[in-house]
Amino acid sequence: MERIALFPGSFDPITRGHESIIRRALPLFDKIIVAIGVNADKKSFFPSEQRKAWINELFADEPAVEVIEYEGLTVDVCRKHNANYILRGLRTSADFEFERMVGQINKKLDQDIETVYLLTMPEYTTLNSSVVREVYKHGGDISQFVPVTVKHRRVAPKE
Amino acid sequence: MERIALFPGSFDPITRGHESIIRRALPLFDKIIVAIGVNADKKSFFPSEQRKAWINELFADEPAVEVIEYEGLTVDVCRKHNANYILRGLRTSADFEFERMVGQINKKLDQDIETVYLLTMPEYTTLNSSVVREVYKHGGDISQFVPVTVKHRRVAPKE
Amino acid sequence: MERIALFPGSFDPITRGHESIIRRALPLFDKIIVAIGVNADKKSFFPSEQRKAWINELFADEPAVEVIEYEGLTVDVCRKHNANYILRGLRTSADFEFERMVGQINKKLDQDIETVYLLTMPEYTTLNSSVVREVYKHGGDISQFVPVTVKHRRVAPKE
Amino acid sequence: MERIALFPGSFDPITRGHESIIRRALPLFDKIIVAIGVNADKKSFFPSEQRKAWINELFADEPAVEVIEYEGLTVDVCRKHNANYILRGLRTSADFEFERMVGQINKKLDQDIETVYLLTMPEYTTLNSSVVREVYKHGGDISQFVPVTVKHRRVAPKE
Amino acid sequence: MERIALFPGSFDPITRGHESIIRRALPLFDKIIVAIGVNADKKSFFPSEQRKAWINELFADEPAVEVIEYEGLTVDVCRKHNANYILRGLRTSADFEFERMVGQINKKLDQDIETVYLLTMPEYTTLNSSVVREVYKHGGDISQFVPVTVKHRRVAPKE
Amino acid sequence: MERIALFPGSFDPITRGHESIIRRALPLFDKIIVAIGVNADKKSFFPSEQRKAWINELFADEPAVEVIEYEGLTVDVCRKHNANYILRGLRTSADFEFERMVGQINKKLDQDIETVYLLTMPEYTTLNSSVVREVYKHGGDISQFVPVTVKHRRVAPKE
Repeated sequence: MERIALFPGSFDPITRGHESIIRRALPLFDKIIVAIGVNADKKSFFPSEQRKAWINELFADEPAVEVIEYEGLTVDVCRKHNANYILRGLRTSADFEFERMVGQINKKLDQDIETVYLLTMPEYTTLNSSVVREVYKHGGDISQFVPVTVKHRRVAPKE
Repeated sequence: MERIALFPGSFDPITRGHESIIRRALPLFDKIIVAIGVNADKKSFFPSEQRKAWINELFADEPAVEVIEYEGLTVDVCRKHNANYILRGLRTSADFEFERMVGQINKKLDQDIETVYLLTMPEYTTLNSSVVREVYKHGGDISQFVPVTVKHRRVAPKE
Repeated sequence: MERIALFPGSFDPITRGHESIIRRALPLFDKIIVAIGVNADKKSFFPSEQRKAWINELFADEPAVEVIEYEGLTVDVCRKHNANYILRGLRTSADFEFERMVGQINKKLDQDIETVYLLTMPEYTTLNSSVVREVYKHGGDISQFVPVTVKHRRVAPKE
Repeated sequence: MERIALFPGSFDPITRGHESIIRRALPLFDKIIVAIGVNADKKSFFPSEQRKAWINELFADEPAVEVIEYEGLTVDVCRKHNANYILRGLRTSADFEFERMVGQINKKLDQDIETVYLLTMPEYTTLNSSVVREVYKHGGDISQFVPVTVKHRRVAPKE
Repeated sequence: MERIALFPGSFDPITRGHESIIRRALPLFDKIIVAIGVNADKKSFFPSEQRKAWINELFADEPAVEVIEYEGLTVDVCRKHNANYILRGLRTSADFEFERMVGQINKKLDQDIETVYLLTMPEYTTLNSSVVREVYKHGGDISQFVPVTVKHRRVAPKE
Repeated sequence: MERIALFPGSFDPITRGHESIIRRALPLFDKIIVAIGVNADKKSFFPSEQRKAWINELFADEPAVEVIEYEGLTVDVCRKHNANYILRGLRTSADFEFERMVGQINKKLDQDIETVYLLTMPEYTTLNSSVVREVYKHGGDISQFVPVTVKHRRVAPKE
């Protein structure tokens, strides 16, 4: 059976931490579907088309990576795309507590889907999209936090 | 490339938590090597032959599981057995902090070996071998904590 | 002196975890007052009458359980209802840090009121009302997470 | 049914943190049995008779407190003394993780025994017997850490 | 070189915990700049002039304490005021995880600025401004949580 | 008043993490005393003369660093050497819980001594002396974990 993993997140924007997890997980799976969560109730900072374009460009040469947008329960999206694994990165023990809750609920909703965790590399442990947005909003330089495809010229944020 | 995972531990004795991690990880890997740590400096409670026999019997029908004893650095054993993955279970955030330290050191010692984590199922979160030994030593019933192949008749512990 | 405990929460909706804590605590107290927090500033998902009805129905045969709605400081509600104990469940260490803060502030506001904690059972460790709401909103099946009295037919949420 | 709690520990020596937990829990229980763990394998610092004498003297005027020594599984001692509750103090989230493991194992060994937790008061959060012993060994003043009945004149420690 | 520290926060309102950190850090630095964060997007509870006045009055006799308002990245404010240190208090391990993320991002944004941490005193571990506001809103007595200069008469909050 | 900090530890051996903390703290203090704990009860891996020589050589050009050996309570050594600060590095939240306990006990033993914490740099977060010893014992390469002055040729360990 093919090993297909879903990597869900808001990727608002994708960080070097996300990129590193995907690249390290590639040998483990036959396909990785990067699933950009779109939430009708919660405005994102960057438009979803922009977030998707950055990831597509980043993995343009990597046929095993596919990028989708999704709404709804993660396990439903997994089933729709035949993904039998969910991939997640773990950074801190605060992360861990949250991920454990989500992972065990997903297991209860569909016990055939396993969540597989990789540790983020130490240099990316403090990185998350919300910090990147904060630096960006105040005009700081985010180039060391995001992949090269995330253009540093200012795009107009949604709000 | 084959996906071979090493699952290192002292398994003194193997618990239902260990068993569950191995069974859930089997579809993800082509082979899982259960590696029983043997430490010249630190006495185990059950003899290593006993610990190995319990695991071998438990996975007798599962050709993708192999059981070995080892001493030394985990990454060295991985290289010797062509394992490109280390498999670990995560139970609590205390676990997480410890596993992160070990995982990142292993990554520094050999960056081609990835450690892959699964969450233990909620019912096994509180289980570890040291608790099982404690209950066993005081004559408590350990049958709900260990796989069926771990015989409940008292074997003479080493010390 | 009678031992009366207040069990405060938003119960939006009550989960099997809440139910389990109340049932296990019943032998310890002469009365348990389930106190549904009503917050003028923060919209709830289910109307408070609905939340109250579910709990009342669940404990219809249990005279030691009383259900009230409240607003304001927990210690003030305790004093008003002669409760000398606050009952709380602990699930994770993230919970613990939060509960410790709240518990110690309450102790400073009224040192005659003790907060008593029970651990949630392992199978309910990952359950909380916000996760239940999330599953519910996306049309998932919440019956394994909530007591039988929480009807699964869709009630119209407030917002 | 009487509410009898067992408060197990090594009390090597009893600290002001222990004393505070017992005094605060007294209104909740009809009897509290302070159970001094005696472990054949692990030498204590102060002799068990000394540890017991300190606690007995401290609660001489409190008929609801009883002091015993015990060996073996905590749940076995509970059953022997008709205790249906185990009482524990929680200081830090590291404590919490450990106590959760122990509490859930005890629940599995005897589901009729509930463990009830109180938070230690902030001023005792950093106190534990091992720190007290360390200060004592190096000739520091331990009087602010232990109840008045723990005499400050040097008793000859066991080892 | 002068040792100048920036102590950033929202101080909405300043608590006894904040006051204690500043007083204990004074001998370590030649100047401490208390920097009140003003966030255009996020309404504060007390007006910034009020927050500033309380702190100014509190340290009226302390020439080494200066109070400013700021917006934007903390490292930018440090550079503008020649502060080579950021001062922070640590209360709980939840705090720690958050502070580590912020501290390491700041280090990446400007590696010449060091963040220096003090532990809050045990009696202030559970105190934070949001708890103080909650008690205040419900008419509770906040005098034990805030410095004497924070007047207890009700000022009209912003919202 | 001079700002003198004591940096206590076993340094068995000193790691790059220790070195980094000392170098980063140098501008904050007029003198840093690296204090090697010598414990009569607990055998070290490397002899204390060796541990001291490595540190002395590492900071040979740095007159503000002094190296001593000590036994007993840290606050007593501080007083003896006129150190009014204790310097510590924080790596993980597990560290934090332990350091908080030690820090608050030290504060109770002598409230004129402040403990000042720096975060370890992300790349050293997983490093500690016990891991280095483990790698060393099994013949692994420790050069990326220790300062250059820690010779990699095998010295005969004590035991």
